[in-house]
Amino acid sequence: MSIQELTQALLKFRDERNWAQFHTLRNLIVSLNLEAAELLELTQWKSEEEMSALFNEEGTQEALRDECADVLLYLLLIADKAGIDLLEAARSKLEKNAVKYPVEKAYGSSRKYTQLED
Amino acid sequence: MSIQELTQALLKFRDERNWAQFHTLRNLIVSLNLEAAELLELTQWKSEEEMSALFNEEGTQEALRDECADVLLYLLLIADKAGIDLLEAARSKLEKNAVKYPVEKAYGSSRKYTQLED
Amino acid sequence: MSIQELTQALLKFRDERNWAQFHTLRNLIVSLNLEAAELLELTQWKSEEEMSALFNEEGTQEALRDECADVLLYLLLIADKAGIDLLEAARSKLEKNAVKYPVEKAYGSSRKYTQLED
Amino acid sequence: MSIQELTQALLKFRDERNWAQFHTLRNLIVSLNLEAAELLELTQWKSEEEMSALFNEEGTQEALRDECADVLLYLLLIADKAGIDLLEAARSKLEKNAVKYPVEKAYGSSRKYTQLED
Repeated sequence: MSIQELTQALLKFRDERNWAQFHTLRNLIVSLNLEAAELLELTQWKSEEEMSALFNEEGTQEALRDECADVLLYLLLIADKAGIDLLEAARSKLEKNAVKYPVEKAYGSSRKYTQLED
Repeated sequence: MSIQELTQALLKFRDERNWAQFHTLRNLIVSLNLEAAELLELTQWKSEEEMSALFNEEGTQEALRDECADVLLYLLLIADKAGIDLLEAARSKLEKNAVKYPVEKAYGSSRKYTQLED
Repeated sequence: MSIQELTQALLKFRDERNWAQFHTLRNLIVSLNLEAAELLELTQWKSEEEMSALFNEEGTQEALRDECADVLLYLLLIADKAGIDLLEAARSKLEKNAVKYPVEKAYGSSRKYTQLED
Repeated sequence: MSIQELTQALLKFRDERNWAQFHTLRNLIVSLNLEAAELLELTQWKSEEEMSALFNEEGTQEALRDECADVLLYLLLIADKAGIDLLEAARSKLEKNAVKYPVEKAYGSSRKYTQLED
């Protein structure tokens, strides 16, 4: 399945329920944030060992997979609404990041680009 | 460009900078939440008219595109880390949603599935 | 009840359950974000009319009150952990904001201070 | 300074700038989430050692103090808007939490109340 086919299935799902009326850009962005928070909730109070179990045990892996899926679904709705080609946007952003974080300065460093040292 | 090719480019970007050491699942999920918040910030204090301009004017459209891209990039890193096939996860989640929100109950309603009426 | 008395009651609640061991600064900040998201969830898909009802109807007002309370409780735990006097910090931040947003420039404007016009 | 005096100073700050018009409940809740995210950003990519430094070193402590202050300021605006007595709400929520997390079950456990064992 390609990202275009997934988008088509998603828009069909939306339109069968007559939900486009609720899908303002603001509402979709709020919903994406709420799904991101559900992903964050999977990490709450977890030790490093419990975090490893999160993607190694079947029950919790499913929760993780579902929350990632929800984030992607809202991202696709936002991209459709705003006329954004998501893969092209990500490819182009990666190029910008390569300029902000040149290998020779950013190698092995977790600093923000504004704080990279020469 | 396919989502697999984008993922490959992203992992190459990460490895050239020796950043995998920072990319614990917890850190990636926190970062995804921060990028989601930057998307939300684009809506802050905006009237409905200003929200429309957000994806119709070139300057703001670029900001929107970049923030969507950042969310996708972290989502791909999480999926890679956790061994998740993102498109398959989204397709499967859409099927679950179809069961939770049957057309005849959910048509034209913005209620949560736990509050849908017969 | 003062904010100091509330803090004392909260720390007693925590210590009776032996929970200080989980309360790293990182964990508390993540939890505060999750409570903020629950507050945001109360606004999800709501029309302007439904938003008004949110604080005028008893059932929903209680949900709003509880989520605000949860945010405050984590904020107090963070402040205690980091040795911050919360009221003094807010008073001092308000002074900084007054410099960033001088009345003559900021009057009736929702712009960020970096975009205020002369 | 009491929380009531702080609230008065905050409302005066708002009204001098004629900002109440922007302060819908939805906008205030979104802004509180953005401030919570700025707090979360202070933890991004940080090791445990760097997290300790966060509240022990003066420069970073100020950032932490300012972000906590911003969360409190929006919380006070929300409470004012919704007619909520914040301290009373927190005291009352703490009582609810004591019922959900009885000492004998919750002692030394980071589980959610729905997963506490007998």
